Amino acid sequence: MAEQLFFFAPIGATIAILFALFQAQKIYKFSEGNDLMKRIAQSVRTGANAYLKRQYTGVALFFAVMVVILAVMAFFGKLTPFVPFAFLTGGFFSGLAGFIGMKVATASNARTAQASSESLNKGLRVAFSSGSVMGFVVVGLGLIDISIWFFLLKYIFYSLDSTYVVNYAREAGMIASDAQIQLISSAMLTFGMGASCMALFARVGGGIFTKAADVGADLVGKVEAGIPEDDPRNPAVIADNVGDNVGDVAGMGADLYESYVVAIVATMALAVSAGYGFGGAAVPMTMASVGILASIIATFFVRTKEDASQKSLLAALRKGTFIASGLIIVASIPVVYYSLDCATYPERFGVYWAIISGLAAGMLIGFFTEYFTSDNYRPTRNLAGTSLTGPATIIIGGLSLGMLSTAVPVIIVAISVMVSFLASGGLEFFQSGAQGSYQTGLYGVAISAVGMLSTLGITLATDAYGPVADNAGGIAEMSHLPSEVRKRTDALDSLGNTTAATGKGYAIGSAALSALALIVAYLDEIKIKKPDFEFKLEISDPRVLIGLMIGVMLPFLFSSLTMSAVGRAAQNIVMEVRRQFREIAGLMEGNADPDYAKCVDLCTRGAQKEMIMPALLGILSPIIVGLMLGPNGVTGMLAGALGSGFVLAIMMANAGGAWDNAKKHIEGGAHGGKGSDPHKAAVVGDTVGDPFKDTSGPAINNFIKLLSMVSIVFAGLILSVWG
Amino acid sequence: MAEQLFFFAPIGATIAILFALFQAQKIYKFSEGNDLMKRIAQSVRTGANAYLKRQYTGVALFFAVMVVILAVMAFFGKLTPFVPFAFLTGGFFSGLAGFIGMKVATASNARTAQASSESLNKGLRVAFSSGSVMGFVVVGLGLIDISIWFFLLKYIFYSLDSTYVVNYAREAGMIASDAQIQLISSAMLTFGMGASCMALFARVGGGIFTKAADVGADLVGKVEAGIPEDDPRNPAVIADNVGDNVGDVAGMGADLYESYVVAIVATMALAVSAGYGFGGAAVPMTMASVGILASIIATFFVRTKEDASQKSLLAALRKGTFIASGLIIVASIPVVYYSLDCATYPERFGVYWAIISGLAAGMLIGFFTEYFTSDNYRPTRNLAGTSLTGPATIIIGGLSLGMLSTAVPVIIVAISVMVSFLASGGLEFFQSGAQGSYQTGLYGVAISAVGMLSTLGITLATDAYGPVADNAGGIAEMSHLPSEVRKRTDALDSLGNTTAATGKGYAIGSAALSALALIVAYLDEIKIKKPDFEFKLEISDPRVLIGLMIGVMLPFLFSSLTMSAVGRAAQNIVMEVRRQFREIAGLMEGNADPDYAKCVDLCTRGAQKEMIMPALLGILSPIIVGLMLGPNGVTGMLAGALGSGFVLAIMMANAGGAWDNAKKHIEGGAHGGKGSDPHKAAVVGDTVGDPFKDTSGPAINNFIKLLSMVSIVFAGLILSVWG
Repeated sequence: MAEQLFFFAPIGATIAILFALFQAQKIYKFSEGNDLMKRIAQSVRTGANAYLKRQYTGVALFFAVMVVILAVMAFFGKLTPFVPFAFLTGGFFSGLAGFIGMKVATASNARTAQASSESLNKGLRVAFSSGSVMGFVVVGLGLIDISIWFFLLKYIFYSLDSTYVVNYAREAGMIASDAQIQLISSAMLTFGMGASCMALFARVGGGIFTKAADVGADLVGKVEAGIPEDDPRNPAVIADNVGDNVGDVAGMGADLYESYVVAIVATMALAVSAGYGFGGAAVPMTMASVGILASIIATFFVRTKEDASQKSLLAALRKGTFIASGLIIVASIPVVYYSLDCATYPERFGVYWAIISGLAAGMLIGFFTEYFTSDNYRPTRNLAGTSLTGPATIIIGGLSLGMLSTAVPVIIVAISVMVSFLASGGLEFFQSGAQGSYQTGLYGVAISAVGMLSTLGITLATDAYGPVADNAGGIAEMSHLPSEVRKRTDALDSLGNTTAATGKGYAIGSAALSALALIVAYLDEIKIKKPDFEFKLEISDPRVLIGLMIGVMLPFLFSSLTMSAVGRAAQNIVMEVRRQFREIAGLMEGNADPDYAKCVDLCTRGAQKEMIMPALLGILSPIIVGLMLGPNGVTGMLAGALGSGFVLAIMMANAGGAWDNAKKHIEGGAHGGKGSDPHKAAVVGDTVGDPFKDTSGPAINNFIKLLSMVSIVFAGLILSVWG
Repeated sequence: MAEQLFFFAPIGATIAILFALFQAQKIYKFSEGNDLMKRIAQSVRTGANAYLKRQYTGVALFFAVMVVILAVMAFFGKLTPFVPFAFLTGGFFSGLAGFIGMKVATASNARTAQASSESLNKGLRVAFSSGSVMGFVVVGLGLIDISIWFFLLKYIFYSLDSTYVVNYAREAGMIASDAQIQLISSAMLTFGMGASCMALFARVGGGIFTKAADVGADLVGKVEAGIPEDDPRNPAVIADNVGDNVGDVAGMGADLYESYVVAIVATMALAVSAGYGFGGAAVPMTMASVGILASIIATFFVRTKEDASQKSLLAALRKGTFIASGLIIVASIPVVYYSLDCATYPERFGVYWAIISGLAAGMLIGFFTEYFTSDNYRPTRNLAGTSLTGPATIIIGGLSLGMLSTAVPVIIVAISVMVSFLASGGLEFFQSGAQGSYQTGLYGVAISAVGMLSTLGITLATDAYGPVADNAGGIAEMSHLPSEVRKRTDALDSLGNTTAATGKGYAIGSAALSALALIVAYLDEIKIKKPDFEFKLEISDPRVLIGLMIGVMLPFLFSSLTMSAVGRAAQNIVMEVRRQFREIAGLMEGNADPDYAKCVDLCTRGAQKEMIMPALLGILSPIIVGLMLGPNGVTGMLAGALGSGFVLAIMMANAGGAWDNAKKHIEGGAHGGKGSDPHKAAVVGDTVGDPFKDTSGPAINNFIKLLSMVSIVFAGLILSVWG
C-alpha cells in the first residue's frame, strides 16, 4: 500500500507545474497597455534580468567551489557520494523557482495596471494569477526534486538488494526496507543544503537590493528633490520596482521552497526511528500532493465583485486559504489512515492531529501577525499616536510592540509542538518513559511542519501577489493613468501589505517548526554515521551551554551584518542619484531620461558584495563550533539559534510592519496627516523598519535553517575529530 | 583547616563596612558650599528620600505577601522552614545597601562640586569616596548576610548532630559533614530570591524613574521651553538629579549585591557534588574576603595630579582595579591551595585557574564595552557619522552596532566557561567520561563567577562614582559656579560615562556567569529534593525545547514591558512640566519657584505602578512553566532566558552607550556640532538609547537571575506535581 502512495508525489508535482503554466499563459493573454506602460515594464524586466544574471553568476561560482569541497570530502569518505549532486539540484531548482516566479511577476505588473483600468476584479485576477504561478512553481519544483531523488535512490543507487543497503541493514540490525528508507532520507537531507544556500543568497541579496533602492529613491527623490513617489524622473525608481520583485517574489519564493522541501525530507528522515518505515516516509510526500490539489481547487474561489471594498477583497483571498485548509483537513484522514496502516495500529492515527495542529498554528500566527501590524487594530493605531512626541518615541514604541508581539507566536508554536508530540505517542512516553513513543512523538512534531506548509501553494500565491500589485501601482503612476485606476491599484497594493505581513508570520512559523525537525534529524544523522556516539545533551554540559549561547548570539550578529549592508549599499545609491540630478541636464524638467540601469547595476553589485559575509557566517559557524565543541556543542548552537532567530525574526518583521502601517495610518489623515510633524516622525520609523522587515528579519529564517543543514552535511567531518 | 577559613568571611565583611564608614565620615568633613548649593542638594535628598520611602513601603507590602505565601508552603512541607526568613534578610540587606549608598551619594554631590572648585583631585577624591562607600557597603553587607546564615545554620539549626542532618546523611548515603554543607547551602540559596526581588524592583523602579524624569526634563525644558540643561527653572530638574541616584546608585548596587551573593552561594551549593566538602564551600567565602582586602588596598592608589587630563583621570581609576586584581591573583593561590588541601590532591589546584579566568573575563568584557561605546574608538565615531543622513540611519546604525557587539562578550564568557571547566576537572571528563570530574568542572564554572566578582568593592566604587559627578555638575550649573568648576565636574562626569559603560559590561558578564551557576544549582536542588527524579534534559525533548523557546522570548517581553513603562511614565512628567510652565506665574522669568516635589512624586508613583508587571513576569513565569512542563521545561527556560537575556542586555546597553557618546562626539564639534541637523538626529538616537541602557538592558540581568531563584525556591512545589 505505502509503496504506491509515493507515486502521488510526482503526480501532484506535475499537476502543480501544469497549473502554473496554465496560469502563466492566461496572464500573457492580457494587454500590457499603452506604449509608455510597455516601456516602463520593459525597464523593470531588464533590471530584474540583469540582477538575476549577475546573482546567478556569483552564486554559480559559490556553488562550484562548494561542489569541489563536497566532492573532495566525499572522495575521502566523509560524505555520501550523492551529496555534491544533491546539493546542486537543491540549489538549481530553488533558483529556477525564483527565476520563473520573477519572470511572470515582471510580466504581470503592467498587465495588472491595464486590467485595473478595466475593473478591480480583473486587476485582482491578473495579480493573483501571477502570485499563484510563483506559489505552484515553488511547490511543484520542490516536490519534483524530492521525487526524482527518491526514485533514483530507491530503485537505482540504494535498491533493496544493493550491497550497501544489505550491509547497512546487517550492521544496524534493521530490516532491509527500514535501512533503505533511512539511507535514502539521509542522502536527501543534503540537498536541503543546496536549497538553503540558494535561499539565503536570494533573501539576503534581494533584501539588500530592494531596501538600498527604496531608501535611495526616497531619500534623494522624495526628500531632497521633492518629487513624488514613483516619479519617472527619479533615477532610482526602476531599481525600486525591480527591488519589489527580487526581494519579495524571488526571495520569498526561495525561502519557502527551502522550508517546504526541508520539512518534507526531515519528516521522512524520522520515519524509521519512529518505527513507521515506508509508510511514515510516504505521509509527508503524499500530504504535499494533497495540499497541492486542495490549493489548486481553492484558487478558483478567489474572485470579487466589481469595485468591492478592501474588506471584501481580503475576504476573497482568505476564502481561498480557508477552503484549501478545509479540503486538507478532510483529505488527510485517509492519507494518514492508509499510509500508517491505522487499521492494524489505531494508535498511529494521532499523527493526523499533529498535521492539524501545524495547519492551525500557521493560520493563527498569520492572524496575530495581522493583529499586531495592521492599522485596523489597536497596537498599530497606538503606535501611530506615539509619533506625536517625535521620532524617538515612535522608535521606542515600535521596538516595544515588536518585542511584545513575539510572545504570541512562541506560545502558538509551543502549543502546536506539544499537541503534535502528545497526540502522536508522546503522551505514552510521559506516562511510561517508553523510548519508542518518544520517537513517534518527534515524528509528530516534524509532520506538523508539513501540515503547516501543506497550503503553501495558495498561501504563497496570496503573498507573492503583493509586489505585483505594488509594481502595478508604480506603473499606473508613472504612465499617468486616470486617478481611479491608481485608486484600484492602491486598494490591491494595500491589501498586499496585509497578505505580506501574514505571509511573513507564516514563513517564520514554518521555519521554526522545520528548524526544529532539523535538530532532531541532526541527532539522527549523527547516530546513523556513528551508532556508538555518546550524546551528552544535558543543558548543564558546558559544551551544550556554550553552543547555546553562541547560537543565541548568531542571529543578532547576522542581523547586524545585513542591516549595515543595507546602509552601505543605500549610501552608494544616494550618491549616484544625487550625481544624476546634478549632471544630467534637463532631468528635473522632464526633458532628459535618467540612467535607470546605472542604479539597478549599483544595487545589484552592492547586494552581491554584501551577501558574502552573512552567507559565510551561516556556513562557517556550524563547522567552527563543531570542530571546537563537537556534536554536543553544535546541538546547543542549533537550539539557541532556533530560539533567538525565531524571536528576533518576529520582532523585526512585526516592528517593521507596524511602523509601515502606522505611517500609512497617518497618511490616511490621522494625527495631522501627510507632511505634519507626526508624519515625519512616522517616516523615520518606517525607514528603520525597512531593513527590519524586508532584509534582516526574513533572512533570519533561512539563516537558522542553513545552520542546521550545514551541521547535518558536515556531521561526518565533525565526527572524524570528535567521534 | 577548612573549618577555620570560614571565619575569614565575617572578618572581611566587618572590615568592608568599617572602611565604608571611614570613607563616609571623610566625605561629611567636606563643605557643601554656599547656601544655594546646600538648598539644591537638600532638594535632591528630599526627593531621593521620598522615592525610597514609597519604594520601600510598596516593596514591604510585596515582601509581606511573599513571606505569607512562603510560610504557608513551608507549613505544608514544600519548603524548608528557614526560607521565609532567608528571603526577608536577602531583601532587607539588599535594600539597606541601596539605602546607604544613596544616602552617601546624595550627601556627596554638592561636596564634590565644592571640592572641585578647589581642585580636580579633591573633586575626584570626594566623588570616588562616595562610590567606594557604595562598593564596600554592598560587598560588606552581602558577606555579612552570608556569614550570619552560614553560622546560624552550621552551629544551631543544622548542627552536625541534629536529627535532620543525621537522617539526611543516612538517606543520601553521605558523610555527615557533606550532608550538613549541602543542607546549609540549599537553605542559603533561597535568600538569593529575596535579594533578586529587591534588585529587580530597584533596577526597574529606578530605571523607570530616572528615564521618565530625564525625558520629561529634556522634552519640555530643553526642546519646548528652550532653557539649558540643569536649569533651576525646569520643574523636572530635581527629579532628573534624583533619578541619577535612584537608578545608577541604588539600582546598580542592588543588582550587584545580588550577583555577588548569588555567585558565592551557588558555588557553595556545588561543593559537595564536586567532592570538595567544606573546603569547597570555604573557597568562595574566603575569596570574597580576600577580594575585599585587595580592593581596600587598591583604593588608596586612586589619586591624580592637579588638573590632570581625562586620560590620566581614567588611568587613576584603572590603576585601582588593576592593583586589586593583581593582589587577588597572588592571594588566591594560598586560598585555593589550603582550602582544597592541594598538598594531598594536587589536581584540585585547577580551581585557581577558574578563578583567574573569571577575573580576566570581567576585565576583557569591560575593555570591549568601552571599545564599542566610547568615542575614542571607531565604532562610535562611525555611528556619529551616520547622523549625517538623519535620525533613521543613526537608529539603524546603533542597533546594528549593538547587535554586532554581542559577539565579543559571548565569546569571552564562552572561553572563560570552557577554561574554568577544563582546568578544574573537565578535561579528564572529556577524556574518560568520569562523572566526578564533570561535577568538579561545574564547580569550576561557578567559582569563576566569584573570581570575576572578587574585585566588586573597587569596581563598583569606580562605577557608582559616576552619578555623583553627574549630580555635582548639575549643582555647579544650577548654583552658577565659575566656568572652570563646571569644566572640572564635566571632566569627572564624562569619565563617569566610561566607567558606567564598563561597569554595565561587568554587571552583565557576572550576571551571565552567576545565572549559569544557578542553572546547575537548580539541577542539584531538584536532585536533593527528589534523588530519584529522572532528568531528561536532552534538547530534543519537546518540554526542554519549548521551555527554551519560551525562555528566549521572556527577556524580549520583559524589555517591551519596561520600555513602554518608561514611555507612559515620561508622558505624565511631560504633562506636568507643561502645566507648571503654563500655570505658575513668573516661572520662566525666575521670579517663582517650580514645584519640584510634584515631579519627583509623579516619577515615584509611575515607577511604583509600572514595576509590578515586569516583576510578576519574573516570578510567575517559572511557576507557570514549571506546572505546565515540569523541571525539564524549567531547565530549558532558564537556559534560553540566560542566552537571550545575556545577548539582549549587551545589545541594549552598548547601543544605548554608543548613541549617548555619538551625541557627545557631535556636541564636541564633529559633523556640525551642537544644534546642527546631525546633532538633532543624534539626540533622537540618544533618547531611544535611554531606556535601552538605563532601564531595560540592565534590568534584564536581574530578571534572568530572578527567574533562576524563583525556580529554585519553588522546585518543591513543581516536584509535587511532576515528581
